[in-house]
Amino acid sequence: MIIDCHGHYTTAPKALEDWRNRQIAGLKDAALTPKASGLRISDDDLRESIQSNQLKKMRERGSDLTIFSPRASFMAHHIGDFNTSAAWAAICNELCARVARLFPDHFIGAAMLPQSPGVDPRTSIPELEKCVKDYGFVAINLNPDPSGGHWKEPPLSDRHWYPIYEKMVELEVPAMIHVSTSCNPCFHTTGAHYLNADTTAFMQCLTADLFKDFPTLKFVIPHGGGAVPYHWGRFRGLAQELGKPLLGDHLLRNIFFDTCVYHQPGIDLLTRVVPIDNILFASEMIGAVRGVDPETGSYYDDTRRYIEAAAGLSAADRARIYEGNARRVYPRLHGTLKARGR
Amino acid sequence: MIIDCHGHYTTAPKALEDWRNRQIAGLKDAALTPKASGLRISDDDLRESIQSNQLKKMRERGSDLTIFSPRASFMAHHIGDFNTSAAWAAICNELCARVARLFPDHFIGAAMLPQSPGVDPRTSIPELEKCVKDYGFVAINLNPDPSGGHWKEPPLSDRHWYPIYEKMVELEVPAMIHVSTSCNPCFHTTGAHYLNADTTAFMQCLTADLFKDFPTLKFVIPHGGGAVPYHWGRFRGLAQELGKPLLGDHLLRNIFFDTCVYHQPGIDLLTRVVPIDNILFASEMIGAVRGVDPETGSYYDDTRRYIEAAAGLSAADRARIYEGNARRVYPRLHGTLKARGR
Repeated sequence: MIIDCHGHYTTAPKALEDWRNRQIAGLKDAALTPKASGLRISDDDLRESIQSNQLKKMRERGSDLTIFSPRASFMAHHIGDFNTSAAWAAICNELCARVARLFPDHFIGAAMLPQSPGVDPRTSIPELEKCVKDYGFVAINLNPDPSGGHWKEPPLSDRHWYPIYEKMVELEVPAMIHVSTSCNPCFHTTGAHYLNADTTAFMQCLTADLFKDFPTLKFVIPHGGGAVPYHWGRFRGLAQELGKPLLGDHLLRNIFFDTCVYHQPGIDLLTRVVPIDNILFASEMIGAVRGVDPETGSYYDDTRRYIEAAAGLSAADRARIYEGNARRVYPRLHGTLKARGR
Repeated sequence: MIIDCHGHYTTAPKALEDWRNRQIAGLKDAALTPKASGLRISDDDLRESIQSNQLKKMRERGSDLTIFSPRASFMAHHIGDFNTSAAWAAICNELCARVARLFPDHFIGAAMLPQSPGVDPRTSIPELEKCVKDYGFVAINLNPDPSGGHWKEPPLSDRHWYPIYEKMVELEVPAMIHVSTSCNPCFHTTGAHYLNADTTAFMQCLTADLFKDFPTLKFVIPHGGGAVPYHWGRFRGLAQELGKPLLGDHLLRNIFFDTCVYHQPGIDLLTRVVPIDNILFASEMIGAVRGVDPETGSYYDDTRRYIEAAAGLSAADRARIYEGNARRVYPRLHGTLKARGR
């Protein structure tokens, strides 16, 4: 089985975006604020949006199951306040839950949280619990910068975030560390902010001892770990200068990288540098880079091709990247699959 | 000849740091502010600090000439105001000029600018001109984020920066795009902020058409280009989605990457992905990562070893990376060398 651990609902029916626009308009004129019940999207609309997009490409590319969360760039936690994010997260998560119910063999949910800049992360716990317990979600997306490119929250190693971690550990759900749209004009969202956040998150963990407090906490760093594998020697050297253990002991029991790296040399580097047990197959398909690479004639985000072509990987290595590691990192995913005889 | 395009005076005599600490104390109590003339560092002190450090390692590693600028993390443009930065930049640049005069075969200067958050970059021009015309410097370091990790200036493509670019083009000096210490607790200085800035700068150029306005402007992006080469497919794909030309035409006449990547797989990726003409040898030695890699028994920042070992490089490729490209990107360096019969 091939599990894609990084998919977002980027193709949701337009009614969702319209609802969000009314919600944003309501921040200036409360009379315009829509009710959650004002969003009507039929099961047929959901089916159509998935069958003609993600599911079609999954079949073409041969992946079986996607861990599916709300569109990352639309989380936009910097907009409005906690109540804004709470209403928006509930709606977006519910849509992903419905997709997972409509296509149980192909999609399983991961939750966005109703984060808001400066607000105690504890406030996200009810939505997190609902998604895991009621919807059967197996992971969360945690935004280390809900300000959207201004980086005003404490580092991920700060006790500020501990209530979320305690709940994650209790429920056995990992977090993908994933920012949202940048509202800082310095940072292009998908070309700079996403990758910077990946690198930043790794370094926040490297300088701290977070995983001593939470030995079973698990983070997935998307987009191939930002700059980290390319600068693996730098990070090994920095850990050494800071008197930290080797990265394998210090971080790699808890941190995993996905394979959203959109060319062969990048995947070759990732699989050469990072232990195979720490690599999770992912494509973030129909995401940041949707075109066809003129150098290969294939879609940039068809990452399976790169894994298949990566030199030095055995069939057993590929099986771990495609499936085995995900079952270990996402215990609830494994449990759900087992219960279904998969 | 082997030219290292990225060296900082990280080993300056302690009197320099003491002076800076007095200057910072003077921001609270003006009576403590030191005069520039209050800094006394003898030529012997300078010689000693270089001979036992950078020059020693250059000889051990076989590099000949370093483009040498003030310590990047000490620029700290976020401290004080323009006058603070002006006094500090003048002192730091003068020390590099003295090192270059003491060791003319081995060091040539690059200037830090007296940038300050929110201050018109035009104010940096007198120091820039002095360094180039009076000191014989061949390049500048331009900090895209003088706020130190809060990213409050406009992107590098904004007209805000054009006065600097006009002067760079007039004087034929390239800029290394190099941030300084992060005062944002989210960003570790050398493990996150530096790499993020490299990625950010590249993407700021990718989304804009800066080099249409300045066809001869040249930027060197340090630390191997941050995350860029590892995600080269992503950047090619983003340029495509944005309707920009191929990266070779859009950016690679103007943007160059150094080789400050501290392990073999990273250098292998860089030299596989980025055209050889866009790669400049550098080590940033005695910088962020000063230790010995237990996996190789060599210093992490001994980047020449990686270039020597990089598969697929011909002797001619190495000559371009070591020397030829630098002579092209730094015309004043080439002119100085020619005048000396090198």
